[in-house]
Amino acid sequence: MATKTVINAAGRSVPLEINGQAVIPFKGVGKHRPEGTKFAPPVPSCSDYPEDGNKLITSLEEALKKCGLADGMTISTHHHLRDGDLVSNKIFEIASAMGIKDLVWFPSASFPCNDPLIKYLDDGTINRIEGSMNGPLGRYVSEGKMKGTAILRSHGGRVQAIQDGDVMIDIAVLAAPSSDTFGNAKGTGGSSACGVIGYAKADYLYASKVIVVTDNLVDFPCIPMEIEGIYVDYVVVVDKIGLPEKIVSGTTRITKSPDRLLIAELTASFLDRSGILKDGVTMQAGAGGTSLAIAVFVHEKLKDKGWKASFGFGGSTKYMVKMLEDGQMGYILDAQVFDLDSVRSLETNVTHVPYPVFNAYNYHSKGNLTSMMDIMILGATEVDLNFNGNVVTHSDGYLLHGIGGWQNCLHARNVILPIPLFRDRIPVIVDEVTTLCGPGELIDVIITERGIAINPLRKDLIDSVKGSGLPVKTIKELKDEAERICGKPQKPVFDDRIVAAVKWVDGTIIDVIRKLKTD
Amino acid sequence: MATKTVINAAGRSVPLEINGQAVIPFKGVGKHRPEGTKFAPPVPSCSDYPEDGNKLITSLEEALKKCGLADGMTISTHHHLRDGDLVSNKIFEIASAMGIKDLVWFPSASFPCNDPLIKYLDDGTINRIEGSMNGPLGRYVSEGKMKGTAILRSHGGRVQAIQDGDVMIDIAVLAAPSSDTFGNAKGTGGSSACGVIGYAKADYLYASKVIVVTDNLVDFPCIPMEIEGIYVDYVVVVDKIGLPEKIVSGTTRITKSPDRLLIAELTASFLDRSGILKDGVTMQAGAGGTSLAIAVFVHEKLKDKGWKASFGFGGSTKYMVKMLEDGQMGYILDAQVFDLDSVRSLETNVTHVPYPVFNAYNYHSKGNLTSMMDIMILGATEVDLNFNGNVVTHSDGYLLHGIGGWQNCLHARNVILPIPLFRDRIPVIVDEVTTLCGPGELIDVIITERGIAINPLRKDLIDSVKGSGLPVKTIKELKDEAERICGKPQKPVFDDRIVAAVKWVDGTIIDVIRKLKTD
Repeated sequence: MATKTVINAAGRSVPLEINGQAVIPFKGVGKHRPEGTKFAPPVPSCSDYPEDGNKLITSLEEALKKCGLADGMTISTHHHLRDGDLVSNKIFEIASAMGIKDLVWFPSASFPCNDPLIKYLDDGTINRIEGSMNGPLGRYVSEGKMKGTAILRSHGGRVQAIQDGDVMIDIAVLAAPSSDTFGNAKGTGGSSACGVIGYAKADYLYASKVIVVTDNLVDFPCIPMEIEGIYVDYVVVVDKIGLPEKIVSGTTRITKSPDRLLIAELTASFLDRSGILKDGVTMQAGAGGTSLAIAVFVHEKLKDKGWKASFGFGGSTKYMVKMLEDGQMGYILDAQVFDLDSVRSLETNVTHVPYPVFNAYNYHSKGNLTSMMDIMILGATEVDLNFNGNVVTHSDGYLLHGIGGWQNCLHARNVILPIPLFRDRIPVIVDEVTTLCGPGELIDVIITERGIAINPLRKDLIDSVKGSGLPVKTIKELKDEAERICGKPQKPVFDDRIVAAVKWVDGTIIDVIRKLKTD
Repeated sequence: MATKTVINAAGRSVPLEINGQAVIPFKGVGKHRPEGTKFAPPVPSCSDYPEDGNKLITSLEEALKKCGLADGMTISTHHHLRDGDLVSNKIFEIASAMGIKDLVWFPSASFPCNDPLIKYLDDGTINRIEGSMNGPLGRYVSEGKMKGTAILRSHGGRVQAIQDGDVMIDIAVLAAPSSDTFGNAKGTGGSSACGVIGYAKADYLYASKVIVVTDNLVDFPCIPMEIEGIYVDYVVVVDKIGLPEKIVSGTTRITKSPDRLLIAELTASFLDRSGILKDGVTMQAGAGGTSLAIAVFVHEKLKDKGWKASFGFGGSTKYMVKMLEDGQMGYILDAQVFDLDSVRSLETNVTHVPYPVFNAYNYHSKGNLTSMMDIMILGATEVDLNFNGNVVTHSDGYLLHGIGGWQNCLHARNVILPIPLFRDRIPVIVDEVTTLCGPGELIDVIITERGIAINPLRKDLIDSVKGSGLPVKTIKELKDEAERICGKPQKPVFDDRIVAAVKWVDGTIIDVIRKLKTD
């Protein structure tokens, strides 16, 4: 089934309608002006809620029924319990048993633990997932098996979609490591602590109905109120919301691969020689092995020079916590916690504070944290000759990752992608990205084990490292080198059918993913 | 000019329209069911805000102009700077100089320092004030001098009106003791610390434009973000936002009046003998001299019995802080800070936390803090034989006070009014209140220096103190006693013209205030 498409400002063929809803093609970075007003959920009344503030209800099933769970509803969840989440699947197990059909699952991300949901996609309980689809779920989408069309949004794009009413959440089911009976809830405490639960913020602010699910009921008031009880309808206590060992790592580890360590060293050198690293710098890096190694190198350089990063935005790890505790970082603003040391730090350091993506990444607000960041370390599955980036599909055309905060982070001052030149003998630098997730004008530097390519738009950066001895090359040179080693991989062959759409941070459609032709 | 009126559920004659806007007559406690959706402010875009997050602008005048200040707009402010506020008047000084007319001032409260605004009411810069009007401002309204009709709301009612779109704020001008250039702001720090600034929450969430005015610019991030910068348009730095000695008291003082001390002792005895005071009790008391004395007595009783209040809702004072620090109170949840000890406590005690009225008092949310409170100590200018209460007018008919959180607090389990039997030889207990602010069904106990009257609806309380030796009387007996001593005061004579309306917590009109006939 072919869909009417137009060519958007990035040159990609995109539809004007997805899942029966009109959509806007990408117009260019900063070009789309939103009109109208934010989404407005129904006005509640205290007269419908218990005077003693006790919103406990016997089970999640009972809560879903009281919230009026019905065919076609949109159900949201957050992903702070990561691969240890025991709540999300339960919702659809209950819905399926009730005979409910055509739900939309709107998670802030999915994990391998959510793969069992395939059976509810198969049996019609779930129409589609709007959110990241990794591994088997992505493969399921790429093979054209999902009934509805997937919509991929960045973390900030998800918040924008909720705030603007592009997605209307009927029921938000929010797992919380600690909650009081009123629904004030937080990410610390109990046996399923995940540190922060800021991904739930847009959900509880804008959903029609909100259910908090906890395994650690605490006395009122549960402080800090990462979820504000005045927005919560029901509180459910269960035995276990998550598997602790899969919620946060016991310990996050830096890479041991010599190539990745070389990339990390090159990145640290580049930050140093280019002058990007400075006293008062602001930075963000992920929890991947290479990013962690970069953080350690940066920490050493700051220490050597007696400098201090003014703040770091987390995804927090023990390496960031060490910077904070050693005095090389002023604050950790935290959207997501990756390891136990970070959970401990959040509970004890007053300068380590929850900072939801709602306050950091939403392009439809009065400013973003991302554009204030000096150093942004990101990854990519592919980068092309125009510095365009892809993070969702692989070169074989399969959808295998979510966007995460990647698009939002592209708004930082210096966006640096330390990536290997090839993975499993597939070059990472290509002629044209399979799926466009981020326009090349926002990607500044590619750092590989065999050289550094700087976006020609960043003449200042090119000048800054002249004569530094760093292995600066053109991106074409890097691509050619990869192809000399690996050869040029075969391009995937796609069907016409659009199986997923990729939204830009402003809600416009930057690209689509089509069904793979499988013989 | 007579207005078309109807008789509401409280038997009061109220209009169907105020200031050209349709209004709903009071239907009874808990009877009005809100329909529709919350107010939705315009969707902003990061593309309109500086990438470096620096929203500084040279002056308040410049900021107001950039926000499009125009005739007829609604301008909101908060009252955390209390009688030391140097910002609110400035707005209208600027507007008047610009020739702007017919503004609506929508403060969370007004203070004597705002009396100079009378000249802008006179010259047409301000059409009306929707908020508390004390002293001269109230007198101005009562004498029919204000062009528009005043609307009096409780703190929670103000939040409800903003959230529901009954009042649409064009520009919120929010004074902040500390702010960063992005507009994240808080009530502590600097030379104008007022402790918390939670009254600003509904304003920044729902206003079209938000200006933060500070005299203490701090490095990003200003933590905790009591105002979230993602909602802020401009940040203005001025020399002084307030006069410290008038913002918070150096020290709040308990009453020295023997009558008031007797009332306080009787109240503490009543709380004790009735069994209302217990381990885990939740309580709120104000900062008046009698309330403070009650807090001290309650503290002693808790200490004697080895009990602990689970939390207290502030208006915080040093007496509450002492309970916290001595271990007789688990948490102070704080909406407003009255003295320096409380500011210090907020900065140092992790169990003393900001808790905005938005999260405590808004009847149109999914539960309120007030209905969870065991002990609520309130005042009144008049109480009548049906236990109805008045807090805005005096028996001479003059509007002289705002409602504050009084109406919201009536939803507590035990509402106790420790009040003198008469003030300046005017009885406080009357046949019928001059202005109805709170229905008698919500007021449980009146405690005077000459006896205690318990609402006949609270048979449980009447039974609980039988044989306790407490001087329990009927309210009629108390009224008769007052009249024997003072005589029956002359009733004020009113014109037909409605000069102010009093809203109930759900936005309906519970009563009106009419122009006083002055010969």
